[in-house]
Amino acid sequence: MDEFLSACRALVGSNYLLRDQVDVLPYETEWRQRVRGKALAVILPATTAEVAAIVVLCGRFGVAIVPQGGNTGLVLGSIPDQSGSAIILSLKRMHAIRAIDSVNNTMIVEAGCLLEHVQQAAAAAGRLYPLALASQGNCTIGGNLATNAGGTAVLRYGNARELCLGLEVVNADGSIWHGLKALRKDNTGYDLRDLFIGAEGTLGIITAAVLKLYPQARSSSTVLLALATPSDALAMLNLARSTLGATLSGFELIADFCLTLVEKHFPSLHTPFAQRHPYYVLLEISDHQAQPQAGHAIEALLELALAQGLIADAVLASSIAQARNLWALRENISLAQGTEGKNIKHDISLPISEIPAFIEYMATCLEQHYPGCRTVCFGHMGDGNLHYNISAPEHVDKQDWLTQQAAINRLVHDQVDRMHGSISAEHGLGSLKREEIKRYKSDTELALMRAIKMALDPQNLMNPGKVL
Amino acid sequence: MDEFLSACRALVGSNYLLRDQVDVLPYETEWRQRVRGKALAVILPATTAEVAAIVVLCGRFGVAIVPQGGNTGLVLGSIPDQSGSAIILSLKRMHAIRAIDSVNNTMIVEAGCLLEHVQQAAAAAGRLYPLALASQGNCTIGGNLATNAGGTAVLRYGNARELCLGLEVVNADGSIWHGLKALRKDNTGYDLRDLFIGAEGTLGIITAAVLKLYPQARSSSTVLLALATPSDALAMLNLARSTLGATLSGFELIADFCLTLVEKHFPSLHTPFAQRHPYYVLLEISDHQAQPQAGHAIEALLELALAQGLIADAVLASSIAQARNLWALRENISLAQGTEGKNIKHDISLPISEIPAFIEYMATCLEQHYPGCRTVCFGHMGDGNLHYNISAPEHVDKQDWLTQQAAINRLVHDQVDRMHGSISAEHGLGSLKREEIKRYKSDTELALMRAIKMALDPQNLMNPGKVL
Repeated sequence: MDEFLSACRALVGSNYLLRDQVDVLPYETEWRQRVRGKALAVILPATTAEVAAIVVLCGRFGVAIVPQGGNTGLVLGSIPDQSGSAIILSLKRMHAIRAIDSVNNTMIVEAGCLLEHVQQAAAAAGRLYPLALASQGNCTIGGNLATNAGGTAVLRYGNARELCLGLEVVNADGSIWHGLKALRKDNTGYDLRDLFIGAEGTLGIITAAVLKLYPQARSSSTVLLALATPSDALAMLNLARSTLGATLSGFELIADFCLTLVEKHFPSLHTPFAQRHPYYVLLEISDHQAQPQAGHAIEALLELALAQGLIADAVLASSIAQARNLWALRENISLAQGTEGKNIKHDISLPISEIPAFIEYMATCLEQHYPGCRTVCFGHMGDGNLHYNISAPEHVDKQDWLTQQAAINRLVHDQVDRMHGSISAEHGLGSLKREEIKRYKSDTELALMRAIKMALDPQNLMNPGKVL
Repeated sequence: MDEFLSACRALVGSNYLLRDQVDVLPYETEWRQRVRGKALAVILPATTAEVAAIVVLCGRFGVAIVPQGGNTGLVLGSIPDQSGSAIILSLKRMHAIRAIDSVNNTMIVEAGCLLEHVQQAAAAAGRLYPLALASQGNCTIGGNLATNAGGTAVLRYGNARELCLGLEVVNADGSIWHGLKALRKDNTGYDLRDLFIGAEGTLGIITAAVLKLYPQARSSSTVLLALATPSDALAMLNLARSTLGATLSGFELIADFCLTLVEKHFPSLHTPFAQRHPYYVLLEISDHQAQPQAGHAIEALLELALAQGLIADAVLASSIAQARNLWALRENISLAQGTEGKNIKHDISLPISEIPAFIEYMATCLEQHYPGCRTVCFGHMGDGNLHYNISAPEHVDKQDWLTQQAAINRLVHDQVDRMHGSISAEHGLGSLKREEIKRYKSDTELALMRAIKMALDPQNLMNPGKVL
């Protein structure tokens, strides 16, 4: 390996090949700080040509490569295993915004660019790049594309996949695919772009991308609705879609227990209703029209919903500060449940029409198996995506509770599968769900995936042990 | 081959295996009636299981398969070569609409379902399936997906790819991939769906699909703008995007010569302006709001555009009949140019910002090489997609003109390539552009495509000679 490491060092410079324990620690440790892998070295190339040269060296010496962006993934996709035989290839130094075309509404960015910087550069050009995630100050656009990230704007704008027009990729043989096309229509062959997107670095390394930009919204409205049941929330979603069209940009379902936890652990935050309700929906409108007209639309919607008995109450934010407070209720659920004690998490999606039946079935099923367990149920209902987390019953030890993880995952995921849902809506598979997925995917689908992997990475050096 | 044909006949019944010249003629002949292939037989299975069984037989006997939907493609992708050794596998009998879920806003349809029937079934459920093509009464949804069809609603809703959530596919080995997921988010492995979409039947046979549905628009407005230059049209597009947001549903550029031809060959149709203008834009708004508010938005836009000097004149349709007349000007361009005499066609896309420079460069270039040639330039400017067709100079024989086809294709496509565009925006490659594309794709990209083809169809029996 000395010969390999010397060659890599000669390529990138000795400052950019890290082996010291202190230096490699943050690269080897996953976002939630629970797992640490072991790398042969961390290498930080500065250009696509350097990435390609390193990949060629890895092929020659049979060294596996774990590509890494902001290392904010939640499924152990961007850290190596314990063997110490793979390199971490960090794209961090490739953070240039190569070009912005505000007339074509596109920008070309390098993989290591932080999502937040992409958003800021788009805004500086008077445009919107809609992808928005909790980790946007730390995650990179390369990682967002490798995992087909979701977030809060999917209802209106789609996942990371729908926001990308072209890619530059270093293949497993070290060749470079220059696919940075900035076109809305191009039917000249297989859709390589979407194959690399979401492949979690197992088919090639994304080094740059062409992103779609949109006009900035002129106005936005935020409203918190109080509802009796998930069925009412579902009817409300379709009413909002037909009334608001594409201006509906957020539709988040929140069960009351989530807000109870937020109020307990964030005493400055309060649910703005006089009494408690079983469910809430945080609804957001982003309009190309100025405020007065957008306001009319939402008032008309609320009147209709009240008349149809779909909602029990509603609070429309009358200032930006008030809108932020409503969003703070939603955004602090994850932290509040963590403070309450570790729980058993799921990132699932369902046909939207199945959500009420799923919630009802699981409540009965879990109560039967784990009396008193408490469900933290919230998520992007507009996309069919729930973060369906199970906390321990009040007086059960939190560490003991985690020993039930596999059994509870099984209960939840089996029901998701029966309802034709997905056990990973937006986080990917990584190495965390790699075994679990075999239970739910057909042999045919796994065989197709393996055939593609073999075809594009015959030496199995691109992020081995992830996805497949 | 007798053994093979007997086995197929036993499978589908003798009524559904055609060999008679009269019976096979429409399946062997392409849409524009210029080319006819030769098939061993035409086979019409009724179920996915029958398709799979036929594919297994083809694998055993080494018989190639040309999948066929409505056979309306324009690049010779759905007819066989002259060898008479391949079967045509028509999906026509698989035309069921399996399910509509108006709450999840999805429908499951079989590949042989006519696009028009899909639209009608969605409308009957109070929903919109947005894909719209000139051939919608004849083309099938399977063909639309296999070619990633475009059409007039791409600006707002995307291509066929963006309108599909899941697929059922018969693979080259006869296995069936049951990928009919109706989910907005699913990050559990490689994006097989988008790989089969646009692959023109060379990787597998799409037998059914889950389609996305949308709320129906409440109102629409159509306006014809008169402009001096393509640059003004480009500025107008961005003004319309920022003013109208997602309600902008059509933006078609039309050069004056196109409408001259329409008026010549369709005497009942007239450009509604007192004088001629070099360019026109047909702009359409589809709104979730009722007419009065939508009307305000378009009036505000026109005032702004006049004030900025972007448009010289504008006609806003005041009735449905008038809107239809404006669209008739656009829709009859193809027929009018055909009546005028055959011309040399291109289906190209460009970064939208390059369109004015492309039109200017090509006008000079073509006039220099072919003095007096007349350009029929129109298309979906909102998607960067032009149908850029070249007619003979006035007194040149039309048949002679077609002998220039290869040379003119080369001039146009080379410039498209220099501007990072595509030589097939929405029609695909088929066998017509299969050689041409090798000039414009890198060896790396072709190698990736070949590796995938080899991995999924090692016997090369799925629509051989198309795409690659």
